[in-house]
Amino acid sequence: MITHRQQVTDMIISAKVLKSIKWTDVAKEIGLSKEWVTAACLGQMAFNKEQSEKIGQIFDLSDEAVAWLQIVPYKGSLPTSVPIDPLIYRWYEVVNVYGSTIKELIHEEFGDGIMSAIDFSMDIQREENPNGDRVNVVLSGKFLPYKTY
Amino acid sequence: MITHRQQVTDMIISAKVLKSIKWTDVAKEIGLSKEWVTAACLGQMAFNKEQSEKIGQIFDLSDEAVAWLQIVPYKGSLPTSVPIDPLIYRWYEVVNVYGSTIKELIHEEFGDGIMSAIDFSMDIQREENPNGDRVNVVLSGKFLPYKTY
Amino acid sequence: MITHRQQVTDMIISAKVLKSIKWTDVAKEIGLSKEWVTAACLGQMAFNKEQSEKIGQIFDLSDEAVAWLQIVPYKGSLPTSVPIDPLIYRWYEVVNVYGSTIKELIHEEFGDGIMSAIDFSMDIQREENPNGDRVNVVLSGKFLPYKTY
Amino acid sequence: MITHRQQVTDMIISAKVLKSIKWTDVAKEIGLSKEWVTAACLGQMAFNKEQSEKIGQIFDLSDEAVAWLQIVPYKGSLPTSVPIDPLIYRWYEVVNVYGSTIKELIHEEFGDGIMSAIDFSMDIQREENPNGDRVNVVLSGKFLPYKTY
Amino acid sequence: MITHRQQVTDMIISAKVLKSIKWTDVAKEIGLSKEWVTAACLGQMAFNKEQSEKIGQIFDLSDEAVAWLQIVPYKGSLPTSVPIDPLIYRWYEVVNVYGSTIKELIHEEFGDGIMSAIDFSMDIQREENPNGDRVNVVLSGKFLPYKTY
Amino acid sequence: MITHRQQVTDMIISAKVLKSIKWTDVAKEIGLSKEWVTAACLGQMAFNKEQSEKIGQIFDLSDEAVAWLQIVPYKGSLPTSVPIDPLIYRWYEVVNVYGSTIKELIHEEFGDGIMSAIDFSMDIQREENPNGDRVNVVLSGKFLPYKTY
Amino acid sequence: MITHRQQVTDMIISAKVLKSIKWTDVAKEIGLSKEWVTAACLGQMAFNKEQSEKIGQIFDLSDEAVAWLQIVPYKGSLPTSVPIDPLIYRWYEVVNVYGSTIKELIHEEFGDGIMSAIDFSMDIQREENPNGDRVNVVLSGKFLPYKTY
Amino acid sequence: MITHRQQVTDMIISAKVLKSIKWTDVAKEIGLSKEWVTAACLGQMAFNKEQSEKIGQIFDLSDEAVAWLQIVPYKGSLPTSVPIDPLIYRWYEVVNVYGSTIKELIHEEFGDGIMSAIDFSMDIQREENPNGDRVNVVLSGKFLPYKTY
Amino acid sequence: MITHRQQVTDMIISAKVLKSIKWTDVAKEIGLSKEWVTAACLGQMAFNKEQSEKIGQIFDLSDEAVAWLQIVPYKGSLPTSVPIDPLIYRWYEVVNVYGSTIKELIHEEFGDGIMSAIDFSMDIQREENPNGDRVNVVLSGKFLPYKTY
Amino acid sequence: MITHRQQVTDMIISAKVLKSIKWTDVAKEIGLSKEWVTAACLGQMAFNKEQSEKIGQIFDLSDEAVAWLQIVPYKGSLPTSVPIDPLIYRWYEVVNVYGSTIKELIHEEFGDGIMSAIDFSMDIQREENPNGDRVNVVLSGKFLPYKTY
Repeated sequence: MITHRQQVTDMIISAKVLKSIKWTDVAKEIGLSKEWVTAACLGQMAFNKEQSEKIGQIFDLSDEAVAWLQIVPYKGSLPTSVPIDPLIYRWYEVVNVYGSTIKELIHEEFGDGIMSAIDFSMDIQREENPNGDRVNVVLSGKFLPYKTY
Repeated sequence: MITHRQQVTDMIISAKVLKSIKWTDVAKEIGLSKEWVTAACLGQMAFNKEQSEKIGQIFDLSDEAVAWLQIVPYKGSLPTSVPIDPLIYRWYEVVNVYGSTIKELIHEEFGDGIMSAIDFSMDIQREENPNGDRVNVVLSGKFLPYKTY
Repeated sequence: MITHRQQVTDMIISAKVLKSIKWTDVAKEIGLSKEWVTAACLGQMAFNKEQSEKIGQIFDLSDEAVAWLQIVPYKGSLPTSVPIDPLIYRWYEVVNVYGSTIKELIHEEFGDGIMSAIDFSMDIQREENPNGDRVNVVLSGKFLPYKTY
Repeated sequence: MITHRQQVTDMIISAKVLKSIKWTDVAKEIGLSKEWVTAACLGQMAFNKEQSEKIGQIFDLSDEAVAWLQIVPYKGSLPTSVPIDPLIYRWYEVVNVYGSTIKELIHEEFGDGIMSAIDFSMDIQREENPNGDRVNVVLSGKFLPYKTY
Repeated sequence: MITHRQQVTDMIISAKVLKSIKWTDVAKEIGLSKEWVTAACLGQMAFNKEQSEKIGQIFDLSDEAVAWLQIVPYKGSLPTSVPIDPLIYRWYEVVNVYGSTIKELIHEEFGDGIMSAIDFSMDIQREENPNGDRVNVVLSGKFLPYKTY
Repeated sequence: MITHRQQVTDMIISAKVLKSIKWTDVAKEIGLSKEWVTAACLGQMAFNKEQSEKIGQIFDLSDEAVAWLQIVPYKGSLPTSVPIDPLIYRWYEVVNVYGSTIKELIHEEFGDGIMSAIDFSMDIQREENPNGDRVNVVLSGKFLPYKTY
Repeated sequence: MITHRQQVTDMIISAKVLKSIKWTDVAKEIGLSKEWVTAACLGQMAFNKEQSEKIGQIFDLSDEAVAWLQIVPYKGSLPTSVPIDPLIYRWYEVVNVYGSTIKELIHEEFGDGIMSAIDFSMDIQREENPNGDRVNVVLSGKFLPYKTY
Repeated sequence: MITHRQQVTDMIISAKVLKSIKWTDVAKEIGLSKEWVTAACLGQMAFNKEQSEKIGQIFDLSDEAVAWLQIVPYKGSLPTSVPIDPLIYRWYEVVNVYGSTIKELIHEEFGDGIMSAIDFSMDIQREENPNGDRVNVVLSGKFLPYKTY
Repeated sequence: MITHRQQVTDMIISAKVLKSIKWTDVAKEIGLSKEWVTAACLGQMAFNKEQSEKIGQIFDLSDEAVAWLQIVPYKGSLPTSVPIDPLIYRWYEVVNVYGSTIKELIHEEFGDGIMSAIDFSMDIQREENPNGDRVNVVLSGKFLPYKTY
Repeated sequence: MITHRQQVTDMIISAKVLKSIKWTDVAKEIGLSKEWVTAACLGQMAFNKEQSEKIGQIFDLSDEAVAWLQIVPYKGSLPTSVPIDPLIYRWYEVVNVYGSTIKELIHEEFGDGIMSAIDFSMDIQREENPNGDRVNVVLSGKFLPYKTY
């Protein structure tokens, strides 16, 4: 009996390790970006029926698991409120060190409001560099203004 | 007597509001990106002597305050470990929802290691869009591999 | 020297108590809802220039304070992450008891996405009732869908 | 052996996903609002005997599970004190940003006291809107005054 | 300039120590229970105009402070979420050790609902006892039932 | 194999739901107050041999479980340091709102010391009232003075 | 204006450093143990009138400060719930490592109950030892049994 | 498969309850103090080979469990950073109320340094007393000075 | 089914205890430092294919477990954010007591930047000493400067 | 009036910035290592009388401040339990990632016990390296064994 989406994520991860599946290949099968597809496999997005069935084939999931892939999950992928894994912590550090800067510059350009994390996309790329390759990440979020009422 | 860098940040903020100074103008005076200069004004980076003096003139700072601008600060710009301001929270949310995705995709591309938050730059731009303008942010960090020893 | 928006909020609160000003009267002067105007006075929204000057007259604020009213504040009006004031705690309790219900019902009706807290308005009214008057609150937020990319 | 109400909630959720049951249909069967019925299914309210038996039929529950549905549960539906799911977080954000405003306006209208979260109801509706549909939520709680003694 | 009710509480406490005032005497002057009056002096309840003026005379408060006594305060009298003072901790311990018992017995007698902390009174008395005097406390709170809707 | 007292509490709770046992009836069988007996069943007090055997009969417990009932438990019945169940939270709220008042009034009457939570008893009663029945709770704790040494 | 006992503790500490006063000498003047007297000076116990006046003379305190010494303080001498000073942390570590042992052995000897921290005394002595002198501390607390009722 | 020392502690506790074994008797068999032996059984110290085998016989442990008894455990016997069991809490309270006193008096006698929690022993004894027996505990720890370098 | 790297770590630890394997011997087999190999076995580093197979032979792991050893783990080896085991706590204490010193001295020597924890190695050695042997640890991390951009 | 050692640390830091003093020069004047002297200036160690006076001359401190330098401070140099400054965080990360490794290897070499953080020294050096200079830190702490008693 599956009672939490995390159980399906565990099945996906287990199959991925055993079968040496790559996220970029899964994304190509689904026909969407590697960022969205990986997030969905890791329990942060909901697949539609057709996508779920493809994922089920790739990772050998039961029908019950495939049904769960179409349910909107309780989102959040980190076990602690301050992440401790060094790679993820660096992102938390960026928010901590640059948080007030980001706030100032977006308000200076756009006024009061936020950069949406829902109408949002992310693209992660390798940039070759003689001093050591770099990870380049583009975040794109719609600006949503606060309005008076 | 100034005993913490925060006091200088407070002076800068206070002068900024009173004199309606813009961060992008400050950055042009200094000749560096708006992201780095704003972060430095907000107490996250250290200025060199020449830069400090220019900042002192722009914000009418005392010599003691200018001396403090050259001291490496205790970094971190957020008052709580989980930020509560809605704009900054959205960034925390991105780390929370996409954290495991970012980790998976960087490891898939680069192997074990991290994306540096030190050898790092950020660029925030407005992208015009008929459905509502977007905030586009490019993060660029050197990949640092874990090695065996 | 004013260095944080909270100082201006303190001035407003202090003047309000001394002069027995009512929020609903302030809202009428500004010509907007009592909910938005009170939130703005309490440091959660930014006033424009004209509104700020009216607020300055009502609460006898200095020019520096009036300048601060136009700055986008670091939002968040509660001193602790779990509120302890009994009235505000009841709202936190509603989120805690009904949180999963709200999530289920919005997803059932709209699919994956959120109810915006930015493109959002609130209206608080007294409902007369022979068993004891009731507080009726209408929350209205735009639905923002997660999309694939 | 069932030792916690959460186990029954898990059974209900699992059956719901497998059988594609909708909360609004469950509510119609029970003859009460979708908000109360969903909250009760999710372990926040107690059903009476007759309601429990209907719920048991809908979700194929054992007699033991049906008995548990009539027990007053330990309420609270969120896994962390600050919710991390984006949809539920937006509600927490509303309490955080508007908390002091709500407090001020209720006290201005009613004097010292609270808006009850017990003698309370909630109604969630879709409001069609050319700029994007909205989620409208009406919260209604009895005002309970503090009295001297 | 008074900006928080705590400042008035501080004035009351300071005067109380200097002038050796007793809470029971203050309560007699006001004509209400010692429990309510002490709580109000400590910033947990709002006085009416007449009561505030009497309190102002007793503790030599300024007019501004007297005005603040009539404002509904942000309630909560403890500096930490788990109290550390031994006397107050014992009460927290009672809630911790007997919390589930209280819940079970009230639900067994009344069904689902709560014991109100708003429509509530408290009476603290010394009970003489040859084995050592006892503190007897009577808590009385209206039962508020959860109802279906 | 039973390794924690909580397992026995789970068995008792499970049997109670299945067999619709009432705590007041259990208390009558044991011949002690409903408050103490419920607390003991819920793992907060230790039964003696004879009491344990009666409890074992009432709830159909194994010999091993009966042996555990005589072991002093690790006390504390709440899953979080700030309780989230609305009924139990109201008690926490009373400690929070009235904590400083209780401290002041006990010290005014008795001097420095505490009200014991060990040499302590509690009695919960329904008080009929035309405006809605009330929960009346009497707490009685020995006063323990701090002494010099 | 003194509004918290901590201010008096600060005055005592400041005078102690300036005048190189020793706690053991203060204790001799008062005629009580160095442990109790130091705790009282540090704001954990209340002095009587005569003792307060002596303390006032030793540390050159104002009459207002002397009045405060007779008020029962809000106890607790540590700034964080897990102490970080290495000397005090070692005591916390003892509670952590030996906590379950202490509980088991006291219950084995005395049955259910606690060792009082109110009817309690402490004696700290140097024990000379060729391998390095030792700190010997004797804690003595009355056993308080839980009783049935 | 045993993967954590806690599993062995659980086996020991389970056998102890079933067979009514006393810690003082275990200590006599091992030939060491009841404090050290109990702490070791509870997973805070490592036994040597001979001691482990005796413990294995007393509690009927498997060879794998006996092997685990010789592994240095991850120490710490409390489930929360602030203990909630009343008996153990009283010890935390002593550290909280007397912490600064202990620090002052050890530094006054010994200078800068700590009382070791490693080169440490503890002895718990019953002291008969007509006013109620007392728990006497002697803590002995080597003083370790901080030195300059 | 293996779903988390921790399960493999548990298998390794269990085999290590049963077969009395030493980390230094494992390191010799792998041909790398004992610090890196132990960290990798404990789930903090990823092995390559050849290393994983050797580890699998040493600890009798299944093929699935061996596959997991090559996956980059979610790093972090401590169960709580402030470690409670006395040995590990001493390291946390060093960071706490010397943290600001380390920061000052590295900045004085190198300017703004950090000491890398990725391009990092550690070497733990016994230093014989007539006053008691010492643990000597050499930490070596590349200095990474913050640069302007 | 100085009431906390932190005030003296603030004076030292303020003078250091204004007069561009280097820690290594201060250490040479005192004749001890730069690590110990910096830690002592930052309020983590106590100076003796002669050292304090030299420090007083270097930083122009008052006699009262010099007296405070000889008082054993409440140690701990970080504002939060998990440090957020990137340089100091890397050290916390090392403890987190390598904590269990350090524990395993010290126990394997020395048996049960700890590496002292009191009988401890630290030496920070620059190591020139063509791939970028490195920070080398040697930590040396006496091994303190747990013994049976």
